[in-house]
Amino acid sequence: MKAISILGSTGSIGCNTLKVIRHLNDFRIVALAAGKNIPEFAEQVREFQPELVSCETDKGAEELLRRLRESRTRPPRIETGGAGLESVATHEQAEIVVSATVGAVGFVPTLRAIEAGKRVALANKETLVMAGELMTKAAKCSGSEILPVDSEHNAIHQCLRGETKREVKRLILTASGGPFRTWSKKSLESATVNEALDHPNWKMGDKITIDSATLMNKGFEVIEARWLFGFDAERIEVMVHPQSIVHSMVEMIDGSIIAQLGVTDMRHAIQYALTYPDRRENRAEPLDLRELANLSFEEPDRARFPCLDLAYGALKTGGTSPAALNAANEVTVRAFLDEKIKFADIATINQQVISEHMSTPAVTLETVLDADGLARRRAEQLVTAVHNPAIAVQNV
Amino acid sequence: MKAISILGSTGSIGCNTLKVIRHLNDFRIVALAAGKNIPEFAEQVREFQPELVSCETDKGAEELLRRLRESRTRPPRIETGGAGLESVATHEQAEIVVSATVGAVGFVPTLRAIEAGKRVALANKETLVMAGELMTKAAKCSGSEILPVDSEHNAIHQCLRGETKREVKRLILTASGGPFRTWSKKSLESATVNEALDHPNWKMGDKITIDSATLMNKGFEVIEARWLFGFDAERIEVMVHPQSIVHSMVEMIDGSIIAQLGVTDMRHAIQYALTYPDRRENRAEPLDLRELANLSFEEPDRARFPCLDLAYGALKTGGTSPAALNAANEVTVRAFLDEKIKFADIATINQQVISEHMSTPAVTLETVLDADGLARRRAEQLVTAVHNPAIAVQNV
Repeated sequence: MKAISILGSTGSIGCNTLKVIRHLNDFRIVALAAGKNIPEFAEQVREFQPELVSCETDKGAEELLRRLRESRTRPPRIETGGAGLESVATHEQAEIVVSATVGAVGFVPTLRAIEAGKRVALANKETLVMAGELMTKAAKCSGSEILPVDSEHNAIHQCLRGETKREVKRLILTASGGPFRTWSKKSLESATVNEALDHPNWKMGDKITIDSATLMNKGFEVIEARWLFGFDAERIEVMVHPQSIVHSMVEMIDGSIIAQLGVTDMRHAIQYALTYPDRRENRAEPLDLRELANLSFEEPDRARFPCLDLAYGALKTGGTSPAALNAANEVTVRAFLDEKIKFADIATINQQVISEHMSTPAVTLETVLDADGLARRRAEQLVTAVHNPAIAVQNV
Repeated sequence: MKAISILGSTGSIGCNTLKVIRHLNDFRIVALAAGKNIPEFAEQVREFQPELVSCETDKGAEELLRRLRESRTRPPRIETGGAGLESVATHEQAEIVVSATVGAVGFVPTLRAIEAGKRVALANKETLVMAGELMTKAAKCSGSEILPVDSEHNAIHQCLRGETKREVKRLILTASGGPFRTWSKKSLESATVNEALDHPNWKMGDKITIDSATLMNKGFEVIEARWLFGFDAERIEVMVHPQSIVHSMVEMIDGSIIAQLGVTDMRHAIQYALTYPDRRENRAEPLDLRELANLSFEEPDRARFPCLDLAYGALKTGGTSPAALNAANEVTVRAFLDEKIKFADIATINQQVISEHMSTPAVTLETVLDADGLARRRAEQLVTAVHNPAIAVQNV
């Protein structure tokens, strides 16, 4: 029985991880951490009986305890907040930690899991975007393996099985292009929240769905790929592939392209990360090639989707730049979801924050968190300034 | 310096192999065998200075000698016929033998190369179609590696790098569908030789181009895949993919499909077979994904292209059946190229030969060659009978 901890168990990846574990008979849950969805969390605790759980807030913990008592479930050890997340991430029995929280909150606990030498099934993008160098160095030091759970990096991981790094010419990350792929620059400016949340292929959380619409998500994936696989930005390309069937590709120096294809169901990548190096049968529907009308590829439009190049730029600048971009983007996406700014403002504010950011080497956790805080405050200021331009000139 | 012999050096694969070797600085030619194109062969001998060559006939050998003397090239050791082919295939210095003759003539020399423990870069389809069991047993015995040179099996070989056989669900061979993919059954009946030779994607020899038009080629590839990779017919599928960009695929038990994509240039597969397990840079043009309008997949039409099921049937029957089908097909394709029979007659005659064939275990070279001879004679009789139906009833 392999023991697993999940950070973010009530989110999209967390729930799918539990679905996968229900069908694998040699995996068990030892610790779970969740955010605001306490009714769902209580159900999970009832079903999987973890030894330890963590709630975001004390209030949440109280509600969980109340619900467990109501259903006569013996309550597990309950912790809260950042300390609770770290306890779940480093639970001594856990061999695999699924890092599936959304945003910067997963950063520190994921680092702790890596430092503890756990296998980390990584769905939390911010971890490698904010501090890829720090994380990969820690993994090297502790012997921790980082297995990517998002479909693109998981695909590249699969394509690289049996290949030698020096024989790889480039990685090709595919992008669906999001809901606005064919929209004009003009219409994009006034795109609504509901339009941006209407992703053509994947059912995901709100934050990542907006990031898909701006292509920021793909930019972050370029940064992640840099750290997961050790290739420079020049050797990582993005190709728009609206059907999301080819999950990503690797081009070898001899001209061969190895691609991984599948249905758009996260359970494939999650299971792969749990069972690797083994592959197991999967309950998800298989891909029926005969149902594919066609598969097409096109260059991303860097003018309409400027967030992609912001990410390439931050990766090139290095140091704390990617962390600052990530922080700014969390603020702007939240502001867009709250209808405080327009769709086009996301890129404009991100760009302004990153252009003002003074990058320093991202050698310690503190440096990274400082850069994160600074960029976050500046982005919030710029969000407010959208309706009150006088504020924009006051730098923090 | 890796030493190489080529069987069939003036054919399409042979010439491409020499192109590849010109650009690899650590491979040299020790022996070459060719058929009727003596002027080309003389050029090759002048350039690559093999220690041994073999011509199909004594007359060819004389012409070669004359041409070499004219150009003041020191002649190599020259042999002829089947014995000459075997000497080239087993040349003691050769580490790799490229088996690229067309048809059954390459069968015995390829077996000899395998028995001698050489790595065989296999382009000669008949070898595994006629006697896959015999060949793979011999390879196991001698430690010979068989590396497939045709694009489909080469693709599957690449997709299987780093994978475990028991985790493979099925192999998916792609087929262009040939020049007649969209033709009606009625028009197919009267298709001309030039129409059949007009392959949409690949420039190949005449025999294999006709086999592509009937889908017999794909059927033979199913049989080859059986022996190369050790999967039953039920786990080998054919999918029509008119663009010939995805060269083949492997579906894993977890639902992942790993595909190999590339341009339609045989030099990729040839170089892969020579340098494996290494990959080297390649002079062939890389694949530009942006130029792909679309990639599509469809089921093969087994009614319009009955040769595909003849191959599955022969593989299922086993023993000498595939050898008999291959022999019949060599005769019928030749007869079609000579305009003695119609396009639709190829399948009809192949089917009649195979349905009459009494399969025996293909345990020795002699059994296989006997089945080949018998089927060949019967097919010739049926070809003659097309214009003189009385002959058809006289079984041989």
